[in-house]
Amino acid sequence: MKFSPLIERLIESLRCLPGVGPKTAQRMAFQILERNRENGLHLANTLREAIQTIRHCDKCRTFCETTLCALCSSTHRDSALLCIVESPMDMSVVEQMGTYRGLYFVLMGHLSPLDGIGPEDIGLHELDQRLSQNIIQEVILATNSTVEGEATAHYISNLVRKRAIKVSRIAHGVPLGGELEYIDTHTLVRAFAARSEL
Amino acid sequence: MKFSPLIERLIESLRCLPGVGPKTAQRMAFQILERNRENGLHLANTLREAIQTIRHCDKCRTFCETTLCALCSSTHRDSALLCIVESPMDMSVVEQMGTYRGLYFVLMGHLSPLDGIGPEDIGLHELDQRLSQNIIQEVILATNSTVEGEATAHYISNLVRKRAIKVSRIAHGVPLGGELEYIDTHTLVRAFAARSEL
Repeated sequence: MKFSPLIERLIESLRCLPGVGPKTAQRMAFQILERNRENGLHLANTLREAIQTIRHCDKCRTFCETTLCALCSSTHRDSALLCIVESPMDMSVVEQMGTYRGLYFVLMGHLSPLDGIGPEDIGLHELDQRLSQNIIQEVILATNSTVEGEATAHYISNLVRKRAIKVSRIAHGVPLGGELEYIDTHTLVRAFAARSEL
Repeated sequence: MKFSPLIERLIESLRCLPGVGPKTAQRMAFQILERNRENGLHLANTLREAIQTIRHCDKCRTFCETTLCALCSSTHRDSALLCIVESPMDMSVVEQMGTYRGLYFVLMGHLSPLDGIGPEDIGLHELDQRLSQNIIQEVILATNSTVEGEATAHYISNLVRKRAIKVSRIAHGVPLGGELEYIDTHTLVRAFAARSEL
């Protein structure tokens, strides 16, 4: 035991945060105790409130503290357009474009059979129900361009097509500002295949 | 506003932790909400308990939840020997040697006139009172080898000498395993000056 029991417990608890090892946890604990007690207490209260209050939006599955999230309850969005993303953070990235006016569906993950994550776990049953209501006219698949993200997009595209709804995938290619020299071959193959006439 | 108000507040609160910027705070918030709610709640409770309970040991000024810390209340330590360190972490490093059997005094900082940190702020009044009790026979100065640490050690050494108590400073020199090629000149000068006959 290097420190008093309560300090040791605090250091151990801080390690539940991602990327925080024993040394960082120790530094955090002492910094809070030495000169940040007020903010630390505020963090403790907010953390507890958030954990006890935050749930999933009934419609799009993103995190929020209300039944419906701000976007799903907005009347200014095009309810015929649905963008499917993997996480609330991806949703915020799409929102930052400032040009997308449709709604979202947040998978909160991706298909990963090896980890036991199947269609039910990423809310595809709810998605199918939503598609069956004949409101959505186009689904935009904006899952990550990883192996799992692509597989998930492929699976969902079959689901959407069965309902005779238009489905699209965001484009793959060279990022703006990207130099060809540093682009991997697979991306370049996709960029050539999807070239557009000028 | 990128996320719901409560999520934004949680992300903002997490930024009171040292080394946590907006992106890390966001990742921490979502990781806790997605798959670590139980540990998160545990962290919130421990954090509050620690902040409300942890105080300074009445004798050595280190952090603990009791009036006297475990070391100061131990009967197995040599009360004639006092090691002065800057922080509880330094105290734990000295303890890890496993060979020091004396007691400690933790400054909880160092003299830093530019930041308005004077002798009173690092407990030198309490230290002087402790020295006046005629129990301590040697004071070992183990403050950092930084400019502030050296200045603090120098200041305290005068204080101790006035009480006619022996005072020593831990040695400066080449660390074990250290290669001369990578040692700075000042350290090498000290290592040469303090050389010992074989």
